[in-house]
Amino acid sequence: MQRVEPRVPSGFRDFSPEESRRRHWLFTQLRQVFELFGYDPIETPAVELLEILLGKYGEEAEKLVFRILNSGDFLKDVPEEIRQTNDYKKWLKHISDKGLRYDLTVPLARYVAQNRGKITLPFKRYQIQPVWRAERPQKGRFREFVQCDADVIGSYDPYYDFEMVLLLDEGFRKIGLGDHRKILINDRRLLQEVFKTFGIEGDGFRKATGIIDKLDKVGIDKVKQLLESEGFSADQIANIEQWLGFKDPEEARKYINDDEAIKPIITLLKQIKDPGITNVEWTPSLVRGLDYYTGTIYEVVLEGAPVGSVSGGGRYDNLTELFGVPNMPGIGISFGADRILTAMEMLKIEPWDTYHTNKVMVILATDKVSWKTLNSVVADIRAQNIPVEILPQKKMKKAFKTANNKNVRITIIIGDREVETAEWGVKDMQTGKQESIPVEKVAETVLNMLS
Amino acid sequence: MQRVEPRVPSGFRDFSPEESRRRHWLFTQLRQVFELFGYDPIETPAVELLEILLGKYGEEAEKLVFRILNSGDFLKDVPEEIRQTNDYKKWLKHISDKGLRYDLTVPLARYVAQNRGKITLPFKRYQIQPVWRAERPQKGRFREFVQCDADVIGSYDPYYDFEMVLLLDEGFRKIGLGDHRKILINDRRLLQEVFKTFGIEGDGFRKATGIIDKLDKVGIDKVKQLLESEGFSADQIANIEQWLGFKDPEEARKYINDDEAIKPIITLLKQIKDPGITNVEWTPSLVRGLDYYTGTIYEVVLEGAPVGSVSGGGRYDNLTELFGVPNMPGIGISFGADRILTAMEMLKIEPWDTYHTNKVMVILATDKVSWKTLNSVVADIRAQNIPVEILPQKKMKKAFKTANNKNVRITIIIGDREVETAEWGVKDMQTGKQESIPVEKVAETVLNMLS
Repeated sequence: MQRVEPRVPSGFRDFSPEESRRRHWLFTQLRQVFELFGYDPIETPAVELLEILLGKYGEEAEKLVFRILNSGDFLKDVPEEIRQTNDYKKWLKHISDKGLRYDLTVPLARYVAQNRGKITLPFKRYQIQPVWRAERPQKGRFREFVQCDADVIGSYDPYYDFEMVLLLDEGFRKIGLGDHRKILINDRRLLQEVFKTFGIEGDGFRKATGIIDKLDKVGIDKVKQLLESEGFSADQIANIEQWLGFKDPEEARKYINDDEAIKPIITLLKQIKDPGITNVEWTPSLVRGLDYYTGTIYEVVLEGAPVGSVSGGGRYDNLTELFGVPNMPGIGISFGADRILTAMEMLKIEPWDTYHTNKVMVILATDKVSWKTLNSVVADIRAQNIPVEILPQKKMKKAFKTANNKNVRITIIIGDREVETAEWGVKDMQTGKQESIPVEKVAETVLNMLS
Repeated sequence: MQRVEPRVPSGFRDFSPEESRRRHWLFTQLRQVFELFGYDPIETPAVELLEILLGKYGEEAEKLVFRILNSGDFLKDVPEEIRQTNDYKKWLKHISDKGLRYDLTVPLARYVAQNRGKITLPFKRYQIQPVWRAERPQKGRFREFVQCDADVIGSYDPYYDFEMVLLLDEGFRKIGLGDHRKILINDRRLLQEVFKTFGIEGDGFRKATGIIDKLDKVGIDKVKQLLESEGFSADQIANIEQWLGFKDPEEARKYINDDEAIKPIITLLKQIKDPGITNVEWTPSLVRGLDYYTGTIYEVVLEGAPVGSVSGGGRYDNLTELFGVPNMPGIGISFGADRILTAMEMLKIEPWDTYHTNKVMVILATDKVSWKTLNSVVADIRAQNIPVEILPQKKMKKAFKTANNKNVRITIIIGDREVETAEWGVKDMQTGKQESIPVEKVAETVLNMLS
């Protein structure tokens, strides 16, 4: 048999027991917060039809999607004229009709459109599932990662713009990052109206905002230089620079007097102050990449942990437009599990249990034990939620080494002699102290040692 | 914009909030049992290299695997002579090097081989993750489903053959199916040695056992007919029929006297009786599909719920052979979440909470509320682990309809008048009784109503 190198594809990862428990801990915390805020879970398949995955974002998504090759004879549907070309893009739709989801918003839109008769609006759902992106792997950027999304679908009410802040606040508090999180907010409506007065709209708006979004990474001089090289005028650049220096959205009244563009963010900032939520900042440079946001936008960074944005989201209109279902607005946020966990390590905030500190191991060095007796002792200990591993091993030195490697706290030793005397060994692996305990007292003894 | 039909690919599924909670409940129970037995969690990527996915099972796997088309210009690596053929199988390795995992055993093998220096043997791991199979969808057969696997790697000790029974027993007890589960066991070593005395080996063994595996579905007459049509002799068929009628593996001594083939299953059956585990049956027709089992095999069915096998597993040798790592035996079992949940519905055993019976909804019919006050009332209720949804809605009739649709137990009503009087409405949605409660007593009142 040929020998294969054991490895994962570039950009993909295994998670060790410690990492898995850490991740599970994080998902459990977020799940609890979502549930307490009245969000319902859904799950959607990893695989969606390409017409859906590519329908909304088109080119942007084309590059991101992992395509699944059609099963069986995938060549049979490729037209002859396409068979002759080397333009692989022309081949794609004939050999692949499915792909892996690259976010949880497109599946949500599909789910809402598909179940619109069955769900109660506003539909508040959360979803914690992996997504896949065919991006070039980089440090800290993976091709498979879990998104933890919460969205409210079917309401234009600005209360939900506020609820997103409450949810971010509570989510980060719950995982122990309450003192580190900074919530940045902005509003696309405001950005759009203000930039219109600078003579910047449409494609120019996308270009200019794409540049100002980089402000905190590259600094103002570089931003101005980039704007210049994209052909923005000196006046426009001066206006943008002034905009970026604003501390309060009220200052936008210098340019516009459109209440619909200014009021939402001002109302939101006021609401936030009222219950004493701090460290929320209006950030005029905040844009967020995705084109589909149409109102309030959010981003969370962690002070002291420069891992980039750990959460983000915003308001969008017409979630289900692609499916011919109109007037379905939404608003949502997403917690980035990977970056949050990296940051927590950096900040040494580690509230999870990555291994059991109370693990018990039975070292079974005999074939003569009564399974009935052993089973009942073990069951009594497990009933107190304490893991018990049974290790069949006659070599004591090896058994203790295994116990130490597995972070075992207490070992129970059963050899032929222990079966005969009906007294089992109980050893504290921290102190090294070992005692002989009558079988009927073993569970009790172990539980006392752990309490 | 073109209109797309919202649907999932054939063989794939969404899970509604109710279904998601039910699944989450099941995974949580199994996770707890695995942890208490000393198994550690790992997670592996959805995507693996094809050389690994196809390395072990070859043809069997070829058809099962969803292949991922190489990113970018996938045509550039297809040799010219292959470009000219219509034999799509020749194309495959040039246009796709990755695929979706179709089980959790291949990734486990890869993980163990890759981390062999780091893990402590015996390595006890559990893994609860989805797998994908490009099979033709059928009723009850899906292309994406979650497997819940527990395996012990690196020990030949027969204790673990026993532990699998303990784990199955405890797993089904924990989810409320303890009285329904029947554990079938057999041993490949025994099957092989007995069939050798019938003159049936190699390919014939695979054919004959493939047929007898269907016994409980098709009956003995059909089995005999199938054996005949495959060219087995009258003597061989008579021998097989006798074998299938055996009730005790001791009867195999009629054919063989090979202790290594008989003793393990006899020892196991004895061990099982000792602690009083019942409803475990030696089943001479039990084979299990996969070629890689080499010792004890297990299958679980549920009496009263004819959904087929809900769990299965067995012992295997040389898990990591493909990677050039020898002597790595293993044993494991897998719980089939989908079939278990279907069976639980059939049996009306429904111990999960699919929705909160204590959900509270604040109907917010005013813009004048103090967020500070509202937030603190809501936080007091949520602190008792009770979900509170805030619904901004000025139309009371609509608000109550939404509350009913969402199974809300208690509503808190805040309109302009309630803000003025500092008395909020609290309504029991079951009795319809509504009272005005001073704001500072609202949380307490709601909590009392729920306790």
